Parts: sequence; structure tokens; C-alpha cells
Amino acid sequence: MRVVLLSGGGGGARFARGLADVLPAGDLTVVGNVGDDVEILGLHVSPDLDSLLYTLAGLIDDERGWGRAGETWSALGAAGEWGGEDWFRLGDLDLGIHLVRTQRLREGAPLSEVTAELAARRALATSLLPATDDRLRTLVETPAGTFPFQEWYVGRGHRDEVTAVSYEGGSEAGPAPGVLDALAEAEAILLAPSNPYLSLGPIVAVQAIRSAIVSRRVRCVAVSPLVGGRSVTGPLDRMLRRMAGGTTPEHVARSYDGLIDVLVIDEADAPAEAPVPLVATQTLMRDRAAERRLAETVLGVACG
Amino acid sequence: MRVVLLSGGGGGARFARGLADVLPAGDLTVVGNVGDDVEILGLHVSPDLDSLLYTLAGLIDDERGWGRAGETWSALGAAGEWGGEDWFRLGDLDLGIHLVRTQRLREGAPLSEVTAELAARRALATSLLPATDDRLRTLVETPAGTFPFQEWYVGRGHRDEVTAVSYEGGSEAGPAPGVLDALAEAEAILLAPSNPYLSLGPIVAVQAIRSAIVSRRVRCVAVSPLVGGRSVTGPLDRMLRRMAGGTTPEHVARSYDGLIDVLVIDEADAPAEAPVPLVATQTLMRDRAAERRLAETVLGVACG
Repeated sequence: MRVVLLSGGGGGARFARGLADVLPAGDLTVVGNVGDDVEILGLHVSPDLDSLLYTLAGLIDDERGWGRAGETWSALGAAGEWGGEDWFRLGDLDLGIHLVRTQRLREGAPLSEVTAELAARRALATSLLPATDDRLRTLVETPAGTFPFQEWYVGRGHRDEVTAVSYEGGSEAGPAPGVLDALAEAEAILLAPSNPYLSLGPIVAVQAIRSAIVSRRVRCVAVSPLVGGRSVTGPLDRMLRRMAGGTTPEHVARSYDGLIDVLVIDEADAPAEAPVPLVATQTLMRDRAAERRLAETVLGVACG
Repeated sequence: MRVVLLSGGGGGARFARGLADVLPAGDLTVVGNVGDDVEILGLHVSPDLDSLLYTLAGLIDDERGWGRAGETWSALGAAGEWGGEDWFRLGDLDLGIHLVRTQRLREGAPLSEVTAELAARRALATSLLPATDDRLRTLVETPAGTFPFQEWYVGRGHRDEVTAVSYEGGSEAGPAPGVLDALAEAEAILLAPSNPYLSLGPIVAVQAIRSAIVSRRVRCVAVSPLVGGRSVTGPLDRMLRRMAGGTTPEHVARSYDGLIDVLVIDEADAPAEAPVPLVATQTLMRDRAAERRLAETVLGVACG
């Protein structure tokens, strides 16, 4: 059963791992968010693609939820001592992938090609694609000003309320090679339990991807990232309250207007009303078994 | 007493530290070799400037003789696993300086400016200048072919005999800002106990630097890098035998033809004949005290 998942990092990556565990090898394509990408110390960093790679390859620090297990921080400390920027936490192990990716990008390879090379190095059975090879950056508007995503999220500790989100380059960005084919061949399209504004919004800001999903002939199922009206990690609940007026399943569903057929919500948020059918289950992925259970449930809904 | 030292890394850097220890703050300018510079994983690496910086700033691994004390190797290992080049040993702490330097160079800052910024970060009392801001690369000719320096030295473990050395870009390279002024104002010019072909050759391959030394009005004293006809580290003795016909003080002195007034040699190489006066002393720098003793002896010779 060919499945396309749109995903950010974090919980989205864990859901991707659950899907990869239960689907036959080769059946899963993950389209990852690049709106969070950032240049740090001259390196191109793709945090969500890295979280997906690290999670699927068994390298992720599951406790911290990002970066690599067994990480150390010598290079960043030294860079700071020499006057380099050190506000964005790049670990030593993590630097390996940023160095290799940046070198390939500077050689002219598109991000999708580099991502495929990196995935091949770990022999991933999952196809991992960036949403776009073009420059697309999430901008966050706040009362304190408009910031590139990482500057707001990491640099300012996402303390400013978000009044709007926009996607610089979104209207000009084309889908990365393989994305539209994967969507056309998919038997189900899934939206991971990621932040609708910050993780999935930048993916569907690519008009061709949005159009392909809007005109789908298969089911598209989203998994709500909220549990009991609150985000598991990150600032989504605050954002939804401010920008959508609340954190019910209805508010989540409206953020995917026209894109989804079903919203899978946590039992803690049921019963509820929404413009699409709701399916309630346990969405909190406490361990690998919970990731697989959620994946199976969502695939069941997508086939239903 | 204003002194200019031409130096590579290794023993040259230790001699520089001895001079910095015994000279009044601000009196020493070190002109460092950049012929060894290399691009690794997209980073500009300046091994000799780094050895000088690390040694003068107290960061060097004195036992290993290069790189930083307390070094780890996670990033390079990870880069290799992702398909990056890992033949050149870049430590995690070491990466800090390469990231910062490379970012500044890409921003358009010349190497001399970046080097000054790095030295200022450690409040060095010694002025550290690259020989040139231009691209100048040492090429090593061997029976197996011609190689960029690091490819031969690190990549092939400097196992091939060297039949000739050349300096790509040398004839076009101009001196870095400050080098000619420092030479003009110097009360003594010193050549460190570095490899004449691989460390000092690339510096005097910059014609304006060579001319300034040839037409000097102060003494220029070189310290032989050989002890008992053998190199303390590195392949110099083999190179001298093959390219100059032997490893006596005369062979060393001839490699500095027209550039020096006196050659300081180790007691193990005395007595000897040479085209310039010889001064014999203990040149092996076993510890910081030995570095200072050698520095004082050489400064005495330069003033004599």
C-alpha cells in the first residue's frame, strides 16, 4: 500500500517511524518540511529532514526528541570562543551531516538529490523527499516583529506570541522531483501529527503540492498533534488559540481546510464536532509500540 | 626589539612561543605559511596558522604536536558515515576555528583580517600574519606524480620521495597587508626551525617577501630544523638528501641562499662548514624552558 506522509520533525518523525515499521519496505514516501532550514556558521541545516533521517535510521536521541544520541558539543563551543554564532545548537555528531550536505549543495546538487544520497547511506527503506529544492522559509509574525523561524523558535525561545505565519518563496517554489509522482501513485495521503502552521504549512505552501492534495482521488488523513487541547511539545496550542480561536479538533481540522477527509484525534479530545469525520484513538507515542499502533490505526482509517 | 619570524607549524610554532615568552609584548610578528592550506568538507583549513594560534594561545596538544588538547573526533566520523571525505583529521574542537574562518572568508574578508580577528579573540600579544591573502599552494613532485601538499603528506602518509617542490600561485601572490611593513621595521628577521621546502619556501615564494629579505639592512638568522642530520619530525632529512644531496648544515644553509646571515645549528651537527657563519647550541625544544633558551640564544645571535 503506497503511502505518502507529509511531516515535520519530532512527533511527525516518530509517526513516520511507526509507518515504516508496519508498511512493506518501499511503500512509504515521506515529504519533509524545509521551511525551518537555516544557515548556521556557513552550513545549510535542515532540521526536519535531519530529524526524519535520524529517527528512521535509529540515530535520534529519543529522550531529547531531536539531534543524535550520544551527542557532544565541542565544535560549537569552540566556534563561539572564536567569535562564531552559537545560538543554534549544533552537536559534533550532527555537524557531520551538515558538512556533507552543505558541501554537496555548494557543488550544485539539489537538496532532494543530497537527501537521497544521505538516506541511501543508511539504506533507508523509506523514500525521503524535501517538499521543494527551492528556497522556502517560514516567517513568524509576532508583536515584537517578523522573524525567520529558527530565530524566533531557538533564538528567542519561541516566547513571542505568533499573530501570523508566512512562507517566503512559497509561491515560487516548485515541488522537489518525485513529490508529485509519489502523490499521484499514493493509495493514501497522511498528514503527520506536526504543527499545521510551522511544519505542514510550509509543505502545502508549494502550490503544486497543495493542488495535488486538493484534487486527490485517495483519502487524506491527518493526525491531530494535540492531546487534550494541548501540544505534546512546542507552541502549537498557543498559536491555535491566538490565530484560530481555540484548540478543539474543529480548529485543527479547519487549519487543513480542503486537504483532509478524516482527522484522527486523541481520545482526550473526543467527543467533538468538526467539518470532517473524526476518529479518536490514543495518539501519544510513548514508545515504539505506540508509534506502530497509531500507524496501524491511521492506515486503517485511510483504507476505510 | 622588533622581530619578524617566518614560520610553519610544529617546531616553528614552539620556537614562536619561546620568542613570545622572552620578547616584550607586541615586539613579535610571525609570518605564517599558507602553502599547506586545504579545503576539506567545504571548509578552509590553514594548518600552520592554526598550529601557531593554538601554540601561542596555549591550546595546542603538545604531545601530539598538532591540533587541540582534549580533542575528540565525532564530527569527522559522522561525516565519513554520511559519505564525506574523512582522510584529513579534523577534530571537533578544531572544527570551531575552521567553521568561523570559512564563514568569514566566504563573506569576503581576507585571510589576514580573519587571522587577526582570531588572534584578537585570544588576546595574543604576537601579531600573526599569513604570508599572503592570495591563493598559494605547495605542490610536491614525486615519482608517483605531483600532489597538493596535504594529499601527499596526510593522504599518502608522505611515503613518496620528493623530487621537487613548487608553489602554485607563488609568482602572482602579493604579501598580506602588514608583512612588508613588519619586515621594514624589524630589528631582526628570523627563520624558524621549519622545513625549508614545505614551510618557509612557500613564504619566500611571495616575491615581495623574498626581495624584502634579500635587501634587508638587519640580520636574518635561521635555525636549522635538523638535529644530528635528521629531522625531529617529518620528512625533511629524506627531502634534503634527495633534493640537495645531503643533510649537513651546509645543505641547510644553501636552501636559504641569499636570505640569511647566520645559521643556528644543533651541537650534534657541529663542527661544520657552510657558506654563512654557524652558531651551535641545543636546538631541541623538549619543554617550554628549552623553547625560551633557544629563543634567547637566537635573539643574541641576531643582535650580535
